[in-house]
Amino acid sequence: MEIFYSPDTEGNRCGTGSGRCILTDDEAAHCVKVLRHKAGDIISVINGKGTMYSCRILSASPRCVEADILSAEENWGTHPYRLHLAVAPTKNADRYEWFAEKACEIGVDEITPVIGRHSERKIFKTARIEKILISAAKQSLKGSVPSVNAPMSVSDFILKYGTPEPAGDNTPEGQNLQDGHLRLIAYCFEDESRPRISVRQALEEYNGDEVSVMIGPEGDFSREEAELAVRHGFIPVHLGASRLRTETAAVTAAEAVYFKWMD
Amino acid sequence: MEIFYSPDTEGNRCGTGSGRCILTDDEAAHCVKVLRHKAGDIISVINGKGTMYSCRILSASPRCVEADILSAEENWGTHPYRLHLAVAPTKNADRYEWFAEKACEIGVDEITPVIGRHSERKIFKTARIEKILISAAKQSLKGSVPSVNAPMSVSDFILKYGTPEPAGDNTPEGQNLQDGHLRLIAYCFEDESRPRISVRQALEEYNGDEVSVMIGPEGDFSREEAELAVRHGFIPVHLGASRLRTETAAVTAAEAVYFKWMD
Repeated sequence: MEIFYSPDTEGNRCGTGSGRCILTDDEAAHCVKVLRHKAGDIISVINGKGTMYSCRILSASPRCVEADILSAEENWGTHPYRLHLAVAPTKNADRYEWFAEKACEIGVDEITPVIGRHSERKIFKTARIEKILISAAKQSLKGSVPSVNAPMSVSDFILKYGTPEPAGDNTPEGQNLQDGHLRLIAYCFEDESRPRISVRQALEEYNGDEVSVMIGPEGDFSREEAELAVRHGFIPVHLGASRLRTETAAVTAAEAVYFKWMD
Repeated sequence: MEIFYSPDTEGNRCGTGSGRCILTDDEAAHCVKVLRHKAGDIISVINGKGTMYSCRILSASPRCVEADILSAEENWGTHPYRLHLAVAPTKNADRYEWFAEKACEIGVDEITPVIGRHSERKIFKTARIEKILISAAKQSLKGSVPSVNAPMSVSDFILKYGTPEPAGDNTPEGQNLQDGHLRLIAYCFEDESRPRISVRQALEEYNGDEVSVMIGPEGDFSREEAELAVRHGFIPVHLGASRLRTETAAVTAAEAVYFKWMD
C-alpha cells in the first residue's frame, strides 16, 4: 500500500479549493514519475495529523497532483497514548536518524533534541529528521507524523515541560500526580538519596496516557540536570542492566511505552 | 572503559602458554597503534563466552599483544535468560546489521538468519554480522558475544529447533510445555483457526528462561511455514498494532524479553 503525504489537504498551492488533496514537490514527482499514476487513479494520502484520505486523481504532473477527497479516516494508525521523547543528539547523526525512524514505527508523537551539559554534539538540524519521520509514517501506515521541536538545553526542556516546582511534597510520585502526566528521566549514575526504579515499574504504576521520557547524551545527564528534573516532576528511572547507547535507550523507552498499551 | 576481544584466552598463536591472553590482528593493532598501550599496562579482555579478564601486558606489537591474566570475572554483563532470534534477511543489509548491533546491546545469545518462502533476499554473509556483534559486545560491556548461525530455510529451522511433532494435544501451549522452552513465531496475517496472542502475553505466561522468536521477511511467513511452526511448538504471536519493519520487529522481540526480566 503506497501512501502519499500532503500536510495541507485544504491547500491551495496549485490553485484548487477545499475538498481537494494536493501533492507537490517530491510527493508529486514520486506519484507521477515513479509510480506512473494518472488522472482517475485512486491514491491514499495522509495529512500527518492522523487522517488518511482516499482520493481520486484529477490532474497529475510531476510538479503537482490534484485529487478529489472521496473519504477520510481519522486516527488512522495512531496509538492509544501520547509519547514525547526528549533525546540528546548522538555524536553520529545516523544514529539519531535511526532512532527517529524506529520510534515513529513503534509510536511516538513528539521528539525534542535536548542538549545536556555533557553533550559533545550541541548543533542539531531538524529538517533531515522531519523527512525521515514523514517517510517512516508513510511506510508504517500511520496517519500522524511525529513533530520535531527545535533543539533546546536540558534545563530549558525541564522548565518548559516539567511541573511547576512543588512547594511541599518532594517525592517524585507526589510531583508526578500534579497533572496526571508521567514524566521520566533515564540516567545511569547511582544516587542513594534518589533511588531509580525501572522504566517498566514506573509505567506499570501509571494510569494515564501521556508520557514524556528524557534520554541523555553518551556522557549522561549531569547530577544538577537530574536534580532539576526531579524537582520538576520527572521520576528517575533506569532502563535495565544493559549498557545502551543513547539511540538504543531512546528506542527502549518507546518500546516500554508501546508494551504497556499492547493488548 | 576500553574492552579487547580475544576468543582464545588459552591460545598459543604467539607462542605463549596458558594463563596468558593474546590479542592479534585488529585487536592488537587497535591496542598498540590507536590506544598506545605498552608493556606493563593493564587491559580488560573478553573471551566472548561470558568471561572478562583483567590482564597486564607483557609484550606489545601491532601484530600481537601478550598479557598475563591477573583476574577473571565470569558471567560479565550477561543476562538472566537465553534468547535465540531467527530473523529473515532484510533487503537492505544495513538494516540487519543494525538489528544485530541493537539486539546485542539489549541482550541476545544466538541469531539465525532464516530464509522464508517470501524472502526476497536469499543470500546472507555471516562474517560481517560477527564483526558487528563483537564490537557491540565490547561497546556494551558484555563478556559474551552472540553467535551467528549459517543461514537456513525457515522449515529447516523449525525442524531443527522446534519440538518433535506432538501426537495428541495440538494446542501451542501443550506443545510448548514439552521441554520448558518458549518458542514464538511472529507473523502478521489473521488466521481464525489459530488466533495470535501478543508477545507480551506469551512472555507473561511463561516461567522458564529459554526463548526463541522467529521473525519473518517483509513478505511475512507463508501460511504453510506458520502451520509447520505451530505443529512444532511455536506459539503464534503478534507484536502489537504497529506495522514494523523486519529489523524493528526483531528488536521489539528482544526488548519484550528484556523487559520480562527487568527488575
